[in-house]
Amino acid sequence: MRFQRYLPPLQWLSGYDRNQATKDLVAALIVTVLLIPQSLAYAQLAGLPAQVGLYASLLPLVAYALFGSSRTLSVGPVAVLSLMTAAALAPLVRAGAVDAVTGAIVLALMSGLILVAMGLLRLGFLANFLSHPVISGFVTASAVVIAASQVKHLLGINTSGGNLLELIQSLASTMDQGNGATLAVGGATLGFLLLARQWGKRVLVSLGLTTRPAELLAKTAPIWAVCVSMVLAWQLELGSLGVRLVGEIPAGLPSLTLVGWDWALWQELALSALLIGVVGFVESVSVGQSLAAKRRERIDPNQELIGLGAANLGAGVSGGMPVTGGFSRSVVNYDAGAQTPAAGVFAAVGIALATVFLTPVIAYLPQATLAATIIVAVASLIDVPAAIRTWRYSRSDFGAMLMTMVLTLGHSIETGLVAGVALSVGLFLYRTSRPHSAVVGRVPGTEHFRNVSRHQVETCPTVAFLRVDESLYFANARFLEERVLELVADDPALRHLVLVCPAVNQVDASALESLEVINERLQTAGVTLHLSEVKGPVMDRLRGTELLSQLSGEVFLSTYRAWQRLIEPSACQRTSV
Amino acid sequence: MRFQRYLPPLQWLSGYDRNQATKDLVAALIVTVLLIPQSLAYAQLAGLPAQVGLYASLLPLVAYALFGSSRTLSVGPVAVLSLMTAAALAPLVRAGAVDAVTGAIVLALMSGLILVAMGLLRLGFLANFLSHPVISGFVTASAVVIAASQVKHLLGINTSGGNLLELIQSLASTMDQGNGATLAVGGATLGFLLLARQWGKRVLVSLGLTTRPAELLAKTAPIWAVCVSMVLAWQLELGSLGVRLVGEIPAGLPSLTLVGWDWALWQELALSALLIGVVGFVESVSVGQSLAAKRRERIDPNQELIGLGAANLGAGVSGGMPVTGGFSRSVVNYDAGAQTPAAGVFAAVGIALATVFLTPVIAYLPQATLAATIIVAVASLIDVPAAIRTWRYSRSDFGAMLMTMVLTLGHSIETGLVAGVALSVGLFLYRTSRPHSAVVGRVPGTEHFRNVSRHQVETCPTVAFLRVDESLYFANARFLEERVLELVADDPALRHLVLVCPAVNQVDASALESLEVINERLQTAGVTLHLSEVKGPVMDRLRGTELLSQLSGEVFLSTYRAWQRLIEPSACQRTSV
Repeated sequence: MRFQRYLPPLQWLSGYDRNQATKDLVAALIVTVLLIPQSLAYAQLAGLPAQVGLYASLLPLVAYALFGSSRTLSVGPVAVLSLMTAAALAPLVRAGAVDAVTGAIVLALMSGLILVAMGLLRLGFLANFLSHPVISGFVTASAVVIAASQVKHLLGINTSGGNLLELIQSLASTMDQGNGATLAVGGATLGFLLLARQWGKRVLVSLGLTTRPAELLAKTAPIWAVCVSMVLAWQLELGSLGVRLVGEIPAGLPSLTLVGWDWALWQELALSALLIGVVGFVESVSVGQSLAAKRRERIDPNQELIGLGAANLGAGVSGGMPVTGGFSRSVVNYDAGAQTPAAGVFAAVGIALATVFLTPVIAYLPQATLAATIIVAVASLIDVPAAIRTWRYSRSDFGAMLMTMVLTLGHSIETGLVAGVALSVGLFLYRTSRPHSAVVGRVPGTEHFRNVSRHQVETCPTVAFLRVDESLYFANARFLEERVLELVADDPALRHLVLVCPAVNQVDASALESLEVINERLQTAGVTLHLSEVKGPVMDRLRGTELLSQLSGEVFLSTYRAWQRLIEPSACQRTSV
Repeated sequence: MRFQRYLPPLQWLSGYDRNQATKDLVAALIVTVLLIPQSLAYAQLAGLPAQVGLYASLLPLVAYALFGSSRTLSVGPVAVLSLMTAAALAPLVRAGAVDAVTGAIVLALMSGLILVAMGLLRLGFLANFLSHPVISGFVTASAVVIAASQVKHLLGINTSGGNLLELIQSLASTMDQGNGATLAVGGATLGFLLLARQWGKRVLVSLGLTTRPAELLAKTAPIWAVCVSMVLAWQLELGSLGVRLVGEIPAGLPSLTLVGWDWALWQELALSALLIGVVGFVESVSVGQSLAAKRRERIDPNQELIGLGAANLGAGVSGGMPVTGGFSRSVVNYDAGAQTPAAGVFAAVGIALATVFLTPVIAYLPQATLAATIIVAVASLIDVPAAIRTWRYSRSDFGAMLMTMVLTLGHSIETGLVAGVALSVGLFLYRTSRPHSAVVGRVPGTEHFRNVSRHQVETCPTVAFLRVDESLYFANARFLEERVLELVADDPALRHLVLVCPAVNQVDASALESLEVINERLQTAGVTLHLSEVKGPVMDRLRGTELLSQLSGEVFLSTYRAWQRLIEPSACQRTSV
């Protein structure tokens, strides 16, 4: 059992049959075709040589197949992680502290180690602190920065910058150096890909294909763009017209190597590696979960950490870059009928063949073509409706989203992410530090008690019933003290205070002490403290504490019983709302 | 009204009469007598010249009387803040970056500014994040460090160190340089003070005093110790025997000055100033609240921030050191009958007279006497029973306490405090990220639903009822997704899932999205999602969202209604516990 959890192939390999293998092979073929241009493009986005993208689509797929818990996730370079890699490495590369390839390897290794460690320590829950609005704001802003960073390849100019402001400044100053032929290639690819996305499926269906093959074929548009532009570049000698091509890249498989240990470099890249790991994990888990749910399968987030960690370690020892489970390729893998992670292994074989045999051809690939595929891919990540929905639903959530977006666009993606998480945790702590509480009165003629300021209820001037609608712990313990003392200070006739606790799921040591303080202070002020409707597990813990042994009043099972015991019927009055 | 809140004297000054004035004057006299040795001692503890302690007991009292909201709080130097001041300045003074007096002034000014800013922004709730166990661990550990730091004055040796380890090492290596006469003075004072604390009141009562005067008189033991040791030092020329005396200090009132602006220094001291401000605030508010409650008065925490901020600014412009409302002096002030903050102003006048007339006498005061008063004062802060109580009640709270203590003793008080807060917030976030939830079934023959694993209830294989016992927000939204998908994956017969929400007080944007995702995923898996017992305010916000318009099932007012609609009675079964 334990082995099976940590090595998921033990779960499916014994029952693996010819039928499954065939389906996996077909899916692998389709995914391979999609992966090649994507891998090249994301290497370019990360500022790395094209072959690094291919290398990152080999061993990581095998490592994930061994340790990952999703059956259909497809692992490899993705847009957001490529941008994060570029941003993390840019200052170090500029300063000459490290070459980009070594830096990417270190990032992959380190985020792999971090993910595996988090998985073994079962820290998957930490990813929950990336709230949806923060992720959404981060992804949208990253997509804008990614698109802006690729404009230079479309125009054939040189720009630099890690955020939108810098990129726009840089673009404005170099715009006049644009190359017409490059723009033609880039513009044509962009147009073709946008048309294919919008109309491709419909055109193919009208040509006689059934829906699913048409959908899959439409998704292979990038590979056609890549093929056609390579042929054109070769035949028309576009390189001599100033169109930048990928150029010669080493043929063959990467050799397995370990980078040298450079403590200062690792320290410098630690935060980036952590964020790359966590962002990749969040993206991957949400893709993996949505696919698993369709087949009523499950994925185990802590095992996913280990699987993705292994994939990144695989990338790190084979000259790759940080990877994770990508949305588009996983959906293609699923739609193409992949049954098990073996499909990933087969796809790795496909990429390996491409690495061995196709590299001479890839040399003719225009960078503008890759830039166009990146821009079209990330355009779909820009989610303005999500921002509008969030604004409508919750201003504070929108605040966290907006801050993440503004800082990602205007400063850096790491700052945006860290500030967004800090703000959303801060807002959450703020909210829980002032819990809802209400003075309640009896609904006439019943045993029910309701908020005196919302309902017409009976109250009695010598007895106050205060209902607390939250667990009690350090962040709101003093708030409760203040609330109670305020109540007592405002009402000199008060003789009894009943804390109504049905919604108190927890009382921590701070809150316990606050309750003891409240009991003591009320006593010196001549007011008796009672509790009512304390939940079973809370009561179990309170037994044996000073609070119960020194409580000036009683613990009532129901609020109504406290009412019967404490009030003087003649003094009661009805509140008007 | 608004003016009255920001300038509390407007509330009491108009009704101020001769009776109140008399009581305030008597209280001021007693407090002054207590304040003089305390002020001198805490200046010594902070590593500052004796007069700084006196200066810090002048203007701050007046400033607090103007802006503070407590009627009986007595402001001045306190033990923990003095230690924090010493610790913050020690490295800078050693490095020659600043002299101790200027450093203390900067700390007072900066923490004053921080407190005023927090008060104006109404950030008083931030202090709640110092949980009781963290404060208790911090105070106990600080008291040990304080006592250890004063041992050198008792022995007449030179030690240094910011934590217990360093102090013990330093003591061990200099122990042989001790001075007999110093030890005699220190030991005698220590013995006298301990006896006075233990037996003083009883002895005075047996001599014929009534309880309250006896109690107050016993508390003036330090001033007798100070007087007697000064006379002895003068008559026996203890200085020439190697007993270190306070020595000559400038007579007269401090001049009002502003320190020069030194950006690097302010930056260096920023965290220390923040911590000094917040710790002082927490100490002061808890003292102030406990005294106010006795008379059914109230204090306003945000106004307290302004009052304490003003007091520290007062200290900063008059050559003082960081101050706050001290426990012992406030209790004395209260017990002596202080009615209004005017008592504080009168005490300031008393200290001013002492500063003008008593300084020649103070020169003869042995440092060992002050050390003994400090040790006796802080000994009462060491609270071992609190640690035992916390250990018994909650292991995780004890963990935060222990970490604070160990780091305060072994590294530095700032590290201890910051790590303690971080750990307790982290533990809290961890707990809330995995909320309690339970699959519930119907208690046979009733409309009530209970946890299937605890009670014998009816369930139906095609319908699951999942009760969630916590508000839903980003930290636990994904947890809910996992819980639901797990439920569905484990049970292929399931057709309906009802989320029972009576304890859900809040649904943030992340949780809303998770609910939408759950709805969609359940739909693709052939399961209908229903909600029941959604609270009114939550329902109000959900209306108009995609969740409700696309919900595959219904929203039921009660779980029983959902039960009636969804189950097939023939398929029901009873669970056995």
